[in-house]
Amino acid sequence: MGLLSEGLTQLLIPLAALVGLAFALLQWFLVSRVKVSGSYGEGNGYKDKLIGEAEEGVDSLEVTVKVAEIQNAISIGATSFLFTQYRYLSIFVGVFSAIIFLFLGSVKGFSTKSEPCTYNTGNTCKPALANAFFTTIAFLLGALTSVLSGFFGMKIATYANARTTLEARRGVGKAFITAFRSGAVMGFLLAANGLLVLYITINLFKLYYGDDWEGLYESITGYGLGGSSMALFGRVGGGIYTKAADVGADLVGKVERNIPEDDPRNPAVIADNVGDNVGDIAGMGSDLFGSYAESSCAALFVASISSFGISHDYTAMSYPLIISSMGIVVCLLTTLFATDLFEIKKVSEIEPSLKRQLLISTVLMTAGIAAVTFVALPSEFTLFSFGTNKAVKNWYLFFCVAIGLWAGLVIGYTTEYYTSNAYSPVQDVADSCRTGAATNVIFGLALGYKSVIIPVFAIAFAIYVSFSLAAMYGIAVAALGMLSTISTGLAIDAYGPISDNAGGIAEMAGMSHEIRERTDALDAAGNTTAAIGKGFAIGSAALVSLALFGAYVSRAGIETVDVLTPKVFIGLLVGAMLPYWFSAMTMKSVGSAALKMVEEVRRQFNTIPGLMEGTAKPDYATCVKISTDASLKEMIPPGALVMLTPLIAGTFFGVETLAGILAGSLVSGVQIAISASNTGGAWDNAKKYIEAGASEHAKSLGPKGSDPHKAAVIGDTIGDPLKDTSGPSLNILIKLMAVESLVFAPFFAAHGGLLFKWL
Amino acid sequence: MGLLSEGLTQLLIPLAALVGLAFALLQWFLVSRVKVSGSYGEGNGYKDKLIGEAEEGVDSLEVTVKVAEIQNAISIGATSFLFTQYRYLSIFVGVFSAIIFLFLGSVKGFSTKSEPCTYNTGNTCKPALANAFFTTIAFLLGALTSVLSGFFGMKIATYANARTTLEARRGVGKAFITAFRSGAVMGFLLAANGLLVLYITINLFKLYYGDDWEGLYESITGYGLGGSSMALFGRVGGGIYTKAADVGADLVGKVERNIPEDDPRNPAVIADNVGDNVGDIAGMGSDLFGSYAESSCAALFVASISSFGISHDYTAMSYPLIISSMGIVVCLLTTLFATDLFEIKKVSEIEPSLKRQLLISTVLMTAGIAAVTFVALPSEFTLFSFGTNKAVKNWYLFFCVAIGLWAGLVIGYTTEYYTSNAYSPVQDVADSCRTGAATNVIFGLALGYKSVIIPVFAIAFAIYVSFSLAAMYGIAVAALGMLSTISTGLAIDAYGPISDNAGGIAEMAGMSHEIRERTDALDAAGNTTAAIGKGFAIGSAALVSLALFGAYVSRAGIETVDVLTPKVFIGLLVGAMLPYWFSAMTMKSVGSAALKMVEEVRRQFNTIPGLMEGTAKPDYATCVKISTDASLKEMIPPGALVMLTPLIAGTFFGVETLAGILAGSLVSGVQIAISASNTGGAWDNAKKYIEAGASEHAKSLGPKGSDPHKAAVIGDTIGDPLKDTSGPSLNILIKLMAVESLVFAPFFAAHGGLLFKWL
Repeated sequence: MGLLSEGLTQLLIPLAALVGLAFALLQWFLVSRVKVSGSYGEGNGYKDKLIGEAEEGVDSLEVTVKVAEIQNAISIGATSFLFTQYRYLSIFVGVFSAIIFLFLGSVKGFSTKSEPCTYNTGNTCKPALANAFFTTIAFLLGALTSVLSGFFGMKIATYANARTTLEARRGVGKAFITAFRSGAVMGFLLAANGLLVLYITINLFKLYYGDDWEGLYESITGYGLGGSSMALFGRVGGGIYTKAADVGADLVGKVERNIPEDDPRNPAVIADNVGDNVGDIAGMGSDLFGSYAESSCAALFVASISSFGISHDYTAMSYPLIISSMGIVVCLLTTLFATDLFEIKKVSEIEPSLKRQLLISTVLMTAGIAAVTFVALPSEFTLFSFGTNKAVKNWYLFFCVAIGLWAGLVIGYTTEYYTSNAYSPVQDVADSCRTGAATNVIFGLALGYKSVIIPVFAIAFAIYVSFSLAAMYGIAVAALGMLSTISTGLAIDAYGPISDNAGGIAEMAGMSHEIRERTDALDAAGNTTAAIGKGFAIGSAALVSLALFGAYVSRAGIETVDVLTPKVFIGLLVGAMLPYWFSAMTMKSVGSAALKMVEEVRRQFNTIPGLMEGTAKPDYATCVKISTDASLKEMIPPGALVMLTPLIAGTFFGVETLAGILAGSLVSGVQIAISASNTGGAWDNAKKYIEAGASEHAKSLGPKGSDPHKAAVIGDTIGDPLKDTSGPSLNILIKLMAVESLVFAPFFAAHGGLLFKWL
Repeated sequence: MGLLSEGLTQLLIPLAALVGLAFALLQWFLVSRVKVSGSYGEGNGYKDKLIGEAEEGVDSLEVTVKVAEIQNAISIGATSFLFTQYRYLSIFVGVFSAIIFLFLGSVKGFSTKSEPCTYNTGNTCKPALANAFFTTIAFLLGALTSVLSGFFGMKIATYANARTTLEARRGVGKAFITAFRSGAVMGFLLAANGLLVLYITINLFKLYYGDDWEGLYESITGYGLGGSSMALFGRVGGGIYTKAADVGADLVGKVERNIPEDDPRNPAVIADNVGDNVGDIAGMGSDLFGSYAESSCAALFVASISSFGISHDYTAMSYPLIISSMGIVVCLLTTLFATDLFEIKKVSEIEPSLKRQLLISTVLMTAGIAAVTFVALPSEFTLFSFGTNKAVKNWYLFFCVAIGLWAGLVIGYTTEYYTSNAYSPVQDVADSCRTGAATNVIFGLALGYKSVIIPVFAIAFAIYVSFSLAAMYGIAVAALGMLSTISTGLAIDAYGPISDNAGGIAEMAGMSHEIRERTDALDAAGNTTAAIGKGFAIGSAALVSLALFGAYVSRAGIETVDVLTPKVFIGLLVGAMLPYWFSAMTMKSVGSAALKMVEEVRRQFNTIPGLMEGTAKPDYATCVKISTDASLKEMIPPGALVMLTPLIAGTFFGVETLAGILAGSLVSGVQIAISASNTGGAWDNAKKYIEAGASEHAKSLGPKGSDPHKAAVIGDTIGDPLKDTSGPSLNILIKLMAVESLVFAPFFAAHGGLLFKWL
């Protein structure tokens, strides 16, 4: 037994979650001290506004009112997207709950009889029907938690954007802190919520399951499926939304009408700003929440059939939750470095400060992992590993978690190297714009392909070490290690779109050029951190889906997945093809949705008199509605591909072919996801590099409107759907198929492979 | 025993090869009847030139002289590339022969003692040192055969291009037959040569090996390695050459100097035309020859440890060679349909005629396979399948070969659907040019991704059926089935670049617009068949490398390749990354080589007075030399990646990790190769669709120089390296790594995995 008693564990986990929640609320409160008011009657602005140096336009009431109006429009648009999404969601959740219940219930023919346990031999476990029921409940809870986290994330983001704009009047440091605190609200809310709901669910389910931990943790896997399937809506639907609005706004506004980005005359401008929140805040949040829920569930499931699971050592079983608890504490300390210990004074300090967050959280967390590993785990135990038992020492687990954590950092920094315009790869891409758009695209694609090398070696190394030390449990906790600093990761990630919105609001409110420059500086740093965040999300998705794959294989009772059998090999080949199919669909979806937006924007410009002159207001709401409806409709085909593939493959081709498909889509999907994200990020920053003209080399390519710049703009537009839709959506493909397979494994094992049985 | 006696087999195989050679020479003779003369003294032109309708300029001596000059320049350029390549080649072959001999010799410490056989238990086999020696000899012979086939292919192609131009004066049908016959020379020479040398090598080796068939067919695998490593130079080096010259010529000529394609004032124009031969004739030929040699070797190796191998049934052992013999006969009959039975009268008949060739050869070959299967194989036998024996009936093998053959047809037709501008996918891409280059690129990439689906299902189906029926032997003969119509495939493939060259020559010789239109029509059909050929090459590469993989696994003594072991999984993940790394390298290589060409072309335009006015001649030879040197130098890094990966992985990580790498790179590489080829092909034909303006829709996008056309040109330029360099080069990556692993398997099994041994 470990040093930590069961009682203390039961106390500390919810305590950490509550501390995380309290910290999130505190940050929210601090952000709320910046006042945005829509009416002239109230006291406007920051209360100590008279203190400090002379600031431009702090007192201007008109500006504040205009900002409040715009914020309101964005907030309404975002909320309208969410509520429309919930309509689709509720149908999906209803149908899928029924499928889960029916498929899992039918495993033993809906019998209500207790069964002998599979692993804990000699004991009796709860009936399969109960597992079907509780899995469905867990699924619903996972979905609900994801939805709530997304909802609050979007609320704080649309609450913070205008406040960041207003604070930008007082200096870049103030604006940075407002945006960063808001990101932290999102990060901590999500991590704490996820942990708390999971903790409560386990304890409630235990009331029924008692000593049947196999059944208990099997049912808990539904939580991961719930979280992950909401990420389908968030990441894929959100990704289509944001790019449809962005591309639609640009194609008519910038290209046809020759008006600048974020111009309030453009009817799609609000939809574009809503899109930043929908795609980058809610999408990224639900993606990472899904990873977090899935890796916890995979770890718990594998642990439940280990020696400490069978001997009912509660503290050791809760090791995954304890890691996450420690993560919240570590991230809390890390946040203080950005918000309280250091102050941003210059624009050039922003990016290092954000990168420092990553490093600090990783270093602190390494110590944290060592601590929890030694107090929570018995010094020696055995893990179940595909039919055999593997003896493991507790310090092995330290290495597993730590290597996942550090692999995340390596991936993050590599992504930065390939997408930041401070280094030669992006500068080379920018340089290739001299000979036109074609060479820009070729160099960009080659850069994306090349950027895969180091992350894949990092993931492979993490997999080898953790797999060798602690089998599939090692992989699952390595994924948790990478995700343990999720609060900090999300904070620096959500910071980006908030700054982006702040810039948009400044432009729309007609604020001075200086303010816009400040928000642009925040935004530029946000671009790089967004790329880092995406790298992180993909890396963790790879580890998570491997862990889920391992759990699936264990649950389906497969002992080898042998490439030398035709069933597995064809699975591998077809699985490797799925990311291509899926990407083709999502890229096409963006195209179709953007086209609808283009038509509406054109229509408004043509039919609303005075719109171009600025005397009439465009109809923002219709554009928001078009983006909302189109994105949700367009996500059905790719969504169906993800959800149906495991069901069809498992039912007709059986568990081995499905195992091949999962492995194939994992190893192939990781590569496309990384290369698509980095190619897009590099094109975006190559364009920014030319626009900013900060060096002699950059100046020789510019200015805006030069031929190289035009070539760079083409690259940037191509990169948009790659980096914000098709690339990140692949995370969902590989994770969701794996967790779905895990949940349905007993059904496939019992009734699957119909086609081969018939032949 | 089968119906065919050993004596008859010994007679029929070389007979078929000789018939193929004779047929090739006959076609060459028929092409040679079109006279091209460089001096005014001889009798010019076609000898029955006065017969037939009035033709334009048939008698013009000046034109013929000019054509002869240009042809001469192209021929010299191509030969100079070949001879420079041979210098690199000879170093490579020398070093690699030594490596093969040393690695394989060291397996049993260079002992000259005979050993007990591995599979034919109880018998004595030749010493490992002898296998090392004979493998090296087989390697040299494979390399030599590939080099010879490439040499003669290039000769006939550069011999036929001018003759096609001249025949175009007499009508499109005459020109078609000249180009097609020349393609057939290449196809039949290659297939017949490959078969003949392999047959002779086996019989010579048998003089030493006697009853030790294990050792004999193990050594023969060197033949596949030899053929395949020459394909590295042909496909990768040739691919870089052709696109460096093409892009270099276009960037200065079309973009900077605003002169048309193939303008004789452009110094890179000869290099560009040489490139078509180097890349599409020699490159494609060596690629398919490699596939042919490898699948034969894989099939023979697996057969040697089957029941008929162990019982020394020579006819059954020669089944792979008999299939190829039948293939030559079938293709001979098929060719007659194009050259003698039907005559092309209209431009619109060209493409259907070529497609008909594919269909006819497939149908005839299906009957041919049935015949040889029943006469050559015993009605029942057992195959060795990873540690177990599998009982197989002879008609199973019919299905294996036939399914490979038909899968090839499905892949070919799917490729055509996605790359021909007669169907909606390419038309949609053309339509997307309305909104600019960015949407064109997005739609093109999505098309490429989508075009992977059907080919992958076709390959998966072929694998499943042949694997289930006859284990790895089934896969190997399925690959042979797909390649059995190689002569026809190569004929319709080589036809394309010959027509392309013919058009270039017409332009350079200043022939009339009408001639150019005829050659353009031939060329357009050639574009589609080139895409079909690439699809075919990739499909067969997938099957071949799987067969090699199976042979490798058998030879390395691995019984399962279990994804659930960390060694295998990291191999799979890293293997799936290699195609990306390799593509990044080849794309970058094209860029660097093209840049050198651009500089030289610019230099000539700036320093040679009267060049733009057409009064001075450019220095073609320097451009040819630059392309030659740059392409061969630039292929070293990607070549090293391919050649070193198996050696490093096998030596340091061991046979399991290497197995994972092979499987990973196979399943991932197939997808990128298909999507890159088809994306590039689609962009090319979308551009041609707009230029031709054959429909109302196409006219609305054109004409040349319109904004949509400009966007289409950008897509076409991006597609060039994708479809002609990085995409097809991946065939080499997946095949060469597999055959190299197969050859070195005994060494890795005996001494490999050092890193894991140390840890």
